[in-house]
Parts: sequence; C-alpha cells; structure tokens
Amino acid sequence: MANSRAGETVVSRVVRIIEAFGARQPTLTVSALARAVDLPLSTTHRLVAELVDSGFLERDETRRIRLGRRLWELASRGSSEAGLAERALPYMEDVHAVVQQHTTLGVLDHDEVLYLTRLSSHSKTRNIATVAGRLPVHACSSGLVLLAHSTPDYQDYMLSQELRRYTDQTITDPVLLRRKLAEIRTLGYASVPGIIIPESTGIAVPVFERGHRAVAALNVIVHRGEEDLSSTVPALKTAARGISRVLGDTV
Amino acid sequence: MANSRAGETVVSRVVRIIEAFGARQPTLTVSALARAVDLPLSTTHRLVAELVDSGFLERDETRRIRLGRRLWELASRGSSEAGLAERALPYMEDVHAVVQQHTTLGVLDHDEVLYLTRLSSHSKTRNIATVAGRLPVHACSSGLVLLAHSTPDYQDYMLSQELRRYTDQTITDPVLLRRKLAEIRTLGYASVPGIIIPESTGIAVPVFERGHRAVAALNVIVHRGEEDLSSTVPALKTAARGISRVLGDTV
Repeated sequence: MANSRAGETVVSRVVRIIEAFGARQPTLTVSALARAVDLPLSTTHRLVAELVDSGFLERDETRRIRLGRRLWELASRGSSEAGLAERALPYMEDVHAVVQQHTTLGVLDHDEVLYLTRLSSHSKTRNIATVAGRLPVHACSSGLVLLAHSTPDYQDYMLSQELRRYTDQTITDPVLLRRKLAEIRTLGYASVPGIIIPESTGIAVPVFERGHRAVAALNVIVHRGEEDLSSTVPALKTAARGISRVLGDTV
Repeated sequence: MANSRAGETVVSRVVRIIEAFGARQPTLTVSALARAVDLPLSTTHRLVAELVDSGFLERDETRRIRLGRRLWELASRGSSEAGLAERALPYMEDVHAVVQQHTTLGVLDHDEVLYLTRLSSHSKTRNIATVAGRLPVHACSSGLVLLAHSTPDYQDYMLSQELRRYTDQTITDPVLLRRKLAEIRTLGYASVPGIIIPESTGIAVPVFERGHRAVAALNVIVHRGEEDLSSTVPALKTAARGISRVLGDTV
C-alpha cells in the first residue's frame, strides 16, 4: 500500500497533501495525514517539514498540521476568484443592506457552483452556501441561472447526467429542467423555493461579462413563503449590472 | 545560472513558482515565470504542466499562466485566516453600516499587518490596505494596536528595528513609540492621522481571543481632519467584542 503510488511525482504528492485539509478537517496529525494521502509516514514527515518551512502548512501548539497563512495570502492575492469577490463585494453589500438577507456570489465550476463570497444576515433563514463551498448546479438558484446562460454543450452535458433529487421541489427531469432554464432566461432571474433544503428559497440573477457571458451568479436566500420578488429582483439586477461594469463592461 | 539551484527540492521549486504570482503580476508566460524563479525553461514547463493538471495553476486563452481556482478554493476552505475573516464579516458590516467608512480586519504577521478582509466605502478617503496585502506595523493604526498588545519580546524586537519614516507623522523614535503604545493600551484604541499617507487617518481597536491575546485589529480609515472618535470608537469596540465572542470567548 505504501508503495502503491511509487511512480507519483512530488508535485502530485504536495497537491494531495494540501487537498487533505478542508472545512471539516482543518487540522490533522502527521500520521492521520499520511493515512489520508496514502503515503509512507517518513515521506509525509519530510514533505510536511518542507511545506511548513515554506509557510504552506503550519503546526499548531499541539503539533497538528493545518494550512498555512502564506498559502492563503498567495492564493488570495493572485487569484481571479479573490479579485472577482473583492470587486463584487461593495455591490453585494448594497443588496444586503436593501434586502437584508443572506447574499452570495457563485461561479460555475465543473458541475457545481463554487461560492466566492457570502454576506450573512441575522435572519432565521438557513443558508448552506459557504465561502469556497460548493452546491450542485441543478439544486440551487445560482446554479440554474448559470446553467440557463451556459453553452448548449454544457447544458446538454448537465441534462444527460443522473441528477439527484434533494427535495420534492428539485427538478431532475431533463424536459422540465429545459423548460425551467428557458423561463429563467426570459425572466432574467431564478426564484426556486425549497429545491435543496425545504425551508429556503434562492433567488439569483446572472452577472455578465462583455455583455454576454455569465461569469457569476448573484443570489439572496430568503425564508420560503416570504419571497418578495418585486423588491428583491430589482435590487439583484441593479447590483449585477454594477458588478458587470467594474468587470470592465456594461451589460 | 540555470544550475545555481540544482540542490533545491521540488517542493521548494513549487513554492517559488506559486510565489511568483501576485496582485501586480497575476499572469505570466512560462518564459517570464522561468526567469522570475531562475529555473531552466524545460523544468519550468514540466512543473507548470503538473500544477495546471492539479488546478493549482491555470492557463488563460493566451496561454499565459495564473494561479488556479482550485488553489484559491483549498486555501480558503481550510485556512484559519479565511475562517476568521468570515466570522468577523457580519460585525465588520455593522461597523461599515454605522460609520460608512473603509473597514478592515488585519492580523500581525512577522513585522507587518496582513489584511484579511476589507469593506470599502464610496468616500473620497484613500485606503491602501488591500485583501491579502500588507502594511508595516509601525505605520498603520492596526499595526500599532496589535503591537501595543503584543508580547514584551516582540515589542523590544520591533523597537530595535530601523523604522521607516513614511510621513512627518510616522513615529520612528523608540521612546516616543513606547509612549504611544502605552497611550493606545490606556485608551483601548489607536487613532493616528497621516502616519503612512498624509490624507488619511486610521482608527483601530484590538480583537481579543480568550480575554487577553489580541488576534486581530479592526480598523476604519477616514479622511484626515474628519475623525469623529466619539461615534467611531464605540462602534469599533462593540463590533470587536462581537467578533471576540464568536471566536469562542467574551472579552
């Protein structure tokens, strides 16, 4: 077992070590890490020591390992995700101040929505979208908005997948889903009650770049049954135009 | 030259490649990257290809290289910096809504303040603190607050350094700086006009963890001469207590 990845490169090992950490297991002992990445303990010790020296990993007081501050700093300073999140934030705050509900910004990544930023409200509404967290495209308002404005190839690909039903409101039938996507394009927004958790409704609009490509979805989450589309949708659309503008183009 | 780092490990090369990207040069050609990290072009090509495969780097349409989405995602999901920033954000929004000025959260990192989050205002005030950006400890209000509440050893170390004078208001004399730190501890906040750029005043308070250790500084930046300490300081102190509480302890 320890030799099963003998042909693997060092780069690939480093990547797997960093991937072993996450929101659910932010710290690991070196032994637990070695088991998680299926590498010999001695190899893991050596790679960890090098990554600690570089600041990519850190040891806490109990000698458990976690991702290092330097990694966060580099990833945040140079990445387009952090740049998009920062440029969108003032407009998200505007929505948040007006609508006073959880507000998120998400992008399409493979067959999921990756959330770049979240502003939380003190409301009772549950929001399962976390920063750097993911939700399935077909089961959240941001995903449906991004899918509705994606390429025909991507839509065909997604509609050919086995889509998981999370609640009785999740649309998994390809014909019904195509109809929903057309409706979203016509309306300019998605409002979907309880498609992933029964008690919440997601409302999302696309953020366009260069007038056509939807690069992100701007979303609010409200308590189901308390949707006020007549105020929420204009606030979202206005903020989305603001974000598009700072991305370099008006819609 | 190409062989000058022949003894270097692959991990160290990977780290240097990732470090080559930043806010000022978010994208690089492979040749420019090879020059920046002083590695042979062939080695750089091979490492870049592996890092692109892993999602740590990405190629844009013009085949220039940038940091990858996967790196941002992993660094944000598992790091304590992202966790602190996210937990502080609702309280920062409260300050921002009340005071309506640039609001930042920073932590001490070596002899600099590393900024984790920033909420910008539409005001004319210049704010040079950027997310994942850094400022010198002695030349910003957040740095002075963190220094005032740091260990005696760290204070001695910082006060023994040659401190750069950015404006005529930057305190570089160790005796005067010690006096300033004592004043900041007594008042519970720092308000420092024009110590790094002449036209801005920073006002900062410490965020405590477990009742004593200052883990972060909460700050607003206002136009110099327009400080309103009687409203700003209570807003900052209230929010800082809120952040301390969600970090697990009341102050």
